[in-house]
Amino acid sequence: MSISNLEFVSYFDIRISYFLYYKLINTIYQTMKELQLIDQIRKRSGKAGRGVKIGIGDDCAVLDCKRDEYILWASDMLAEGTHFQVKDGYKRIGRKAVSVNISDIAAMGGTPKYILISIGVTKKMGAKAIKGIYDGIFEVCREYGIKVIGGDTVSSGKLVIDVSIIGFARKRNLVTRSGAKEKDLILITGPVRDGKKEHLDFSPRMKEAEELTKNYKITSMIDTSDGISMDLMRISSESKVGCRLYSDAVPLSGGLSLESALYYGESFELLFTMASGEARKLFKNMGRRKEAPKYFVIGEITKKKNGLVLVGKEGRVSKLKPKGFRHI
Amino acid sequence: MSISNLEFVSYFDIRISYFLYYKLINTIYQTMKELQLIDQIRKRSGKAGRGVKIGIGDDCAVLDCKRDEYILWASDMLAEGTHFQVKDGYKRIGRKAVSVNISDIAAMGGTPKYILISIGVTKKMGAKAIKGIYDGIFEVCREYGIKVIGGDTVSSGKLVIDVSIIGFARKRNLVTRSGAKEKDLILITGPVRDGKKEHLDFSPRMKEAEELTKNYKITSMIDTSDGISMDLMRISSESKVGCRLYSDAVPLSGGLSLESALYYGESFELLFTMASGEARKLFKNMGRRKEAPKYFVIGEITKKKNGLVLVGKEGRVSKLKPKGFRHI
Repeated sequence: MSISNLEFVSYFDIRISYFLYYKLINTIYQTMKELQLIDQIRKRSGKAGRGVKIGIGDDCAVLDCKRDEYILWASDMLAEGTHFQVKDGYKRIGRKAVSVNISDIAAMGGTPKYILISIGVTKKMGAKAIKGIYDGIFEVCREYGIKVIGGDTVSSGKLVIDVSIIGFARKRNLVTRSGAKEKDLILITGPVRDGKKEHLDFSPRMKEAEELTKNYKITSMIDTSDGISMDLMRISSESKVGCRLYSDAVPLSGGLSLESALYYGESFELLFTMASGEARKLFKNMGRRKEAPKYFVIGEITKKKNGLVLVGKEGRVSKLKPKGFRHI
Repeated sequence: MSISNLEFVSYFDIRISYFLYYKLINTIYQTMKELQLIDQIRKRSGKAGRGVKIGIGDDCAVLDCKRDEYILWASDMLAEGTHFQVKDGYKRIGRKAVSVNISDIAAMGGTPKYILISIGVTKKMGAKAIKGIYDGIFEVCREYGIKVIGGDTVSSGKLVIDVSIIGFARKRNLVTRSGAKEKDLILITGPVRDGKKEHLDFSPRMKEAEELTKNYKITSMIDTSDGISMDLMRISSESKVGCRLYSDAVPLSGGLSLESALYYGESFELLFTMASGEARKLFKNMGRRKEAPKYFVIGEITKKKNGLVLVGKEGRVSKLKPKGFRHI
């Protein structure tokens, strides 16, 4: 149900929209709680010290302990019932567990290298199920040149997988969430897919991240794991800027609603910003090659005081509320 | 119930011992399954390449990407019902989640530095419960000079915490599981405590690890997380040696049975090997200082063909079966 259809509500629709309204309020509340939690942890953890380029608040932690490269380090936990169902198939679950972590490394301009895998397996899972998960894990690892170098396997009430990943980024290629500047354009690597249906079978945007960070000056980047509104809010907050998002410009895959793209997430494209001159170079080069990845301009960076704004049909402007697929 | 008491069995005792027998068979089976699993993963992950000093098969993975130090990297997952109960208290659970990881870094002669924390929280946990876990986490981090620099918080059917830790070890201080030599002595850092009762409130043996690796030539080391029999088996297997364990020499805390020390685990002492000349130096220095940590000789390294042997009362020799507290 898109916003523009709201005028034709039947009794049934009202009930649905009550439900959606309740879910929305709940989601905003949960989102606030999670942001507060991250903020609290950040405050309590204090200054990370000299060896840490970036601590809490980006896709990866960034360690500065080599001369020409940063170490990127992230971990993402997938829990049964939240991020997958057992009936999705063990191999696909294993693939997703690694892919979401690769996406974090890509979002900072790095190359993934090593993973540790912690799995909590349930008592009813046999050797075949565990092998299935590892089949998926090793398949993705082969595709991206990643080595499994350790981990932990324990017994758990529900299936849970936590992958910890290390990658490296050339110092000049590192892209954070905090570098967006007023007048930069906001771009996305591809049409937003339906996270509800496709969240298990996505390919992390490694090729795009490499092309972008090697050849252009990218001012900020994030992966769209939590819905565009939430991810844009993160860039705004870390970069201390505002942004205008053009709803008609957001590329949507196969009939996906704008609402889902803004508020659902689990789509794993890259959302990034660059100066308009750089974007012109990018599109000029894109025009020359048929096979090259596609990029889409969806908005622009403004002053902080303007906040997050959604520009709708016929230029109607509304506040963009940051809410998304979050887990507490 | 110790083995020497087996001659005085009552009906009740027989029922218990049937239960223990069943558990034992089950544990051996589970232990075999886990070892097979680790072996399979190791085979499938293949050669880790130039940047990896040690992959699967030690307390930490070891990355060789700095000139004078190795990066030690580990992750340990704690699951509700397996490693803790909610009634144990959130703060103690948080403390344990970090402590088991510090113990892994200590066991390789490193200094812990940074952690990422992934937590799967249940729907019934409120803000206070989550704060409780972080209270425990930050308390241990302060004690050991560790910084929290990232992580993930998700919704999960059961409470689960996976900590990923990075530490550093001077290259000459690195101790692995694979360096034990014939005639080395086997030592332990303290009396084995009752893992069933004390597994939440232990202090990782950081001070001992530092003293040992800085001042002595330690040939191999491991933390006793899974019971001495299992941990000795790991050293034997990685070092390609056999070992003789003297049952009377194993120091036991507060009435703990030898069986528990050998087969239960969750005690988190350090088990290590060194040449007898080095041990003589260690004990000479120990005698001089009253406050210094205590170390106990519990056995010696033999040829591989001799396997794992337990020397009991009056010199009676039996096979030491590797089985322990394991989780699948």
